[in-house]
Amino acid sequence: MNFHYPNGKRFVPKSSNMEHAVRKSQKGKNFVYSNRGMTLEEDLNETNAFYLESGIAVIHKKPTPVQIVNVDYPKRSAAVIREAYFKQASTTDYNGVYKGKYIDFEAKETKFTTSFPLKNFHSHQISHMSSVLDQGGISFVILSFTALSEVFLLEASRLLDFWSRMESGGRKSITKDEVEQSGHKIIFGFRPRIDYIKVIDYLYKLS
Amino acid sequence: MNFHYPNGKRFVPKSSNMEHAVRKSQKGKNFVYSNRGMTLEEDLNETNAFYLESGIAVIHKKPTPVQIVNVDYPKRSAAVIREAYFKQASTTDYNGVYKGKYIDFEAKETKFTTSFPLKNFHSHQISHMSSVLDQGGISFVILSFTALSEVFLLEASRLLDFWSRMESGGRKSITKDEVEQSGHKIIFGFRPRIDYIKVIDYLYKLS
Repeated sequence: MNFHYPNGKRFVPKSSNMEHAVRKSQKGKNFVYSNRGMTLEEDLNETNAFYLESGIAVIHKKPTPVQIVNVDYPKRSAAVIREAYFKQASTTDYNGVYKGKYIDFEAKETKFTTSFPLKNFHSHQISHMSSVLDQGGISFVILSFTALSEVFLLEASRLLDFWSRMESGGRKSITKDEVEQSGHKIIFGFRPRIDYIKVIDYLYKLS
Repeated sequence: MNFHYPNGKRFVPKSSNMEHAVRKSQKGKNFVYSNRGMTLEEDLNETNAFYLESGIAVIHKKPTPVQIVNVDYPKRSAAVIREAYFKQASTTDYNGVYKGKYIDFEAKETKFTTSFPLKNFHSHQISHMSSVLDQGGISFVILSFTALSEVFLLEASRLLDFWSRMESGGRKSITKDEVEQSGHKIIFGFRPRIDYIKVIDYLYKLS
């Protein structure tokens, strides 16, 4: 199950994703709630929708950045983009507001079970997180170990430490042990599915 | 000079915009600084770039939302989007963080000189601004009267009042007088071009 960001990975349109999710859940006899064919992105979108409806927080995923080159304007119908390219995002994917505070995060998946590769992040995302911290915002990453059905929240400040270690010649990943020690495990729920705001409340004493 | 958002308006690629800007400035003998062929979007992008470089604030424009239908994967070259459509944005275009506070705004232009039509905003943007205010965020709109070379910051709370007036059968626009009285005029500068953070400092006593 690929996290379908355009970072060189194959793009899968939303509709076929949903089919896949349905197919998978129908097929699975041992239906495990925490790994039910939903992608991390879908889980977070539903979580954010729940936060919005419940008046808990206003957090949205940013649209995929696209460089538009050519557009057709057929008469009496909608404009069709005929040539466009995926662009590298210059920020993280999710941001918004919780209790007046600025919230900013990136979500990434790995199939690995013993470590989380840092190549999942881009250097401009790292510098964006650093700028957000300098500005007093709340920044973190959500790390999903898909094969283990485990999701962690890791504060950006800790991620920056691991990134610096790599840049000074150290390992190119965060070990699972380090994620467990530095991060905060998020238990899957029904609504919201990935209740990351609970961790933010705990860390920043906002509730 | 159209503000090139995809809301039913013709899309103009960035490059041809720049050509247009150059052509215009070369042609104009009476070169007026405040109306030099730059769009509001370009002015705001440069303003936000200045805020970012100077460590003043981290505010970005969100990518244009696009529904991707068909993608080609040529061998040995980048993926090409072959069919996509412009989607209605569900939020405002700009957001970010300033001194820990969540900042959220929309920017709109009009050619009119005596009023600002409310049809420039969509009801889902209005409800987004309302949610942001409920969550303690700072929300506003930047209104540009292009023919007058005048730009105003109007707090979302005031915009919501004008919107309610329209919904209860009142006028479908904000008069220029009302914009002047309820809003805050922003004088064009060199760097940053549209120093809206100065108004935020004044309104929220953040400096």
